[in-house]
Amino acid sequence: MIEIEPILNGNRLALARLLTQIENDTHAGRAALSGLFPYTGRAHLIGVTGAPGTGKSSLVNQLARHYRKSDRPRRVAVVAVDPSSPFTGGAVLGDRIRMTELSGDPGVFIRSMASRGSLGGLARATAGIVQAYDAAGYEIILIETVGAGQAEVDIARLAHTTLVVEAPGLGDEIQAIKAGILEIADVLVINKADRPGVENTERALRTMLQLAHPVHRVFRHHGRLELASPSHALDAQSPVAPLWVPPVLRTVASDGQGIPKLAEAITHHQEYLVQTGDLERRERARLQNELEQRIQEALVNRWRAAAKNGQFEELLKKLVAREVAPEEAVAQLVA
Amino acid sequence: MIEIEPILNGNRLALARLLTQIENDTHAGRAALSGLFPYTGRAHLIGVTGAPGTGKSSLVNQLARHYRKSDRPRRVAVVAVDPSSPFTGGAVLGDRIRMTELSGDPGVFIRSMASRGSLGGLARATAGIVQAYDAAGYEIILIETVGAGQAEVDIARLAHTTLVVEAPGLGDEIQAIKAGILEIADVLVINKADRPGVENTERALRTMLQLAHPVHRVFRHHGRLELASPSHALDAQSPVAPLWVPPVLRTVASDGQGIPKLAEAITHHQEYLVQTGDLERRERARLQNELEQRIQEALVNRWRAAAKNGQFEELLKKLVAREVAPEEAVAQLVA
Repeated sequence: MIEIEPILNGNRLALARLLTQIENDTHAGRAALSGLFPYTGRAHLIGVTGAPGTGKSSLVNQLARHYRKSDRPRRVAVVAVDPSSPFTGGAVLGDRIRMTELSGDPGVFIRSMASRGSLGGLARATAGIVQAYDAAGYEIILIETVGAGQAEVDIARLAHTTLVVEAPGLGDEIQAIKAGILEIADVLVINKADRPGVENTERALRTMLQLAHPVHRVFRHHGRLELASPSHALDAQSPVAPLWVPPVLRTVASDGQGIPKLAEAITHHQEYLVQTGDLERRERARLQNELEQRIQEALVNRWRAAAKNGQFEELLKKLVAREVAPEEAVAQLVA
Repeated sequence: MIEIEPILNGNRLALARLLTQIENDTHAGRAALSGLFPYTGRAHLIGVTGAPGTGKSSLVNQLARHYRKSDRPRRVAVVAVDPSSPFTGGAVLGDRIRMTELSGDPGVFIRSMASRGSLGGLARATAGIVQAYDAAGYEIILIETVGAGQAEVDIARLAHTTLVVEAPGLGDEIQAIKAGILEIADVLVINKADRPGVENTERALRTMLQLAHPVHRVFRHHGRLELASPSHALDAQSPVAPLWVPPVLRTVASDGQGIPKLAEAITHHQEYLVQTGDLERRERARLQNELEQRIQEALVNRWRAAAKNGQFEELLKKLVAREVAPEEAVAQLVA
């Protein structure tokens, strides 16, 4: 049994202990998350994803510093997730770099998670950690992942604003692979923008953006067909829901260049989400998804508890021997 | 209602029609697959995956030709799956290239599928198409996908032997991203091996292989600890189950160089799977996975049919308003 009051009151040790329970998916951790749920839904969730070598961790670091040092300092929490193979060790390294600059600030909380078991388990643990941060009163939550396919999509579902980070000199091929990732980007960041080739990277990204947001994604505006543009997105007077076209921004995270502009773009996107009702829609879709997942689990657990001993094994054996088709096996098992 | 006899008898038109039903996930398609199930489990399934630009389609093309022209010609079927965004159009292009060389051969059947809807739906349709090919008597089934994350893993589960295709000059970064893919590779192919930089690519792959198959993956052999090696894998006299270490092979698919060696490696892997009992284990794991998926679906469908009208929507609303926690909502919905 985990007390939730200390977590709501900002006790860091209590939060750290809860995160461990969430990572290990214990009963106590689940119960505590259930108790914390009414206090969630207030934080702005920012996803940060990109290939290894783009400098995501430094960028997250600088964004955290920026939010701490602004006129109205915000409480910032970071969860860094490395869904790739254990031998890359990215999460651990990233943690060490950040610790030196931000440790000691009580308004910042950082947690790293490396791959453990299934991708599904990792996505669930990340969602739980974000929920705990949210209830604990962190206003900005940064969710950092190494770009590795399905993981980004899961995290894009979790985050309100998703940054996709690129860097010059990663080659054209990488961009061909990552075309799908552009579709989840709300803001595109070219980090390490002091490196040669930054113009090429920006040109390639803009070309791909045009492909990802093609001409058919126009909308009716005062009866005329128009292409969506960022200026529309920020125009509160617009009578129709505008489209958000991801801005492309340059940063040099190592010395903080471009970070204020990036924070501004994130704020713009947040305003856009609120004005268009997208924030509510995303939130609702996320909770619907979670509810469906949990119903499914509950049904399977109940079925398992009631299932006849050995019947599953027996039918699986017949299935392997092609003596029964899957449909028949299921009909018998679920009868 | 689809007749299954014409499909078992090798009628191409009947097979083509069934594949369309499977792609559209119709009731008739499912029923036919159920009827065909007893006739499956005979084909060797070969997965071929890799980044865009590696020449996978040409490689698949050449492998199909090789199996057709061998001393004992095998019937070959290909399913090319492009899970990436619609705007890449890879599947369609690949199809056109292959058609010119293999069309007219009654021993070859080719089908392309582009992304439609969910990744899960695509993986299921691919599994159905492979099952139909298998029942129709195709002995070699080639499953081609563009490397895009989760899709490869799903296909590796389906295939008996998975080829991962690389090419020189794709840069180091790409290889860092794709490290996870090495873990699903049974055979590594460096295609376009006549290009400069092939030595670097091979060196990088071998380094990564050592990371993916680290020293702790040794096994006891006559009481001594030994590192696994391909020669052990092929030694039927070995008293312990050896490990398969993926060979690294060079090919030039455009003119057929290296294709016979590649086909040989595939045969070796097939023999290895049979000798170690891995083929049976993989098959069993695949069917267990399918059975679990279907039980889950059946339970959800049954729940949906019995659910009170509007109760789900009502509880979702309360969830969004934080008036109820997910656990409580599920308890009420599943009660």
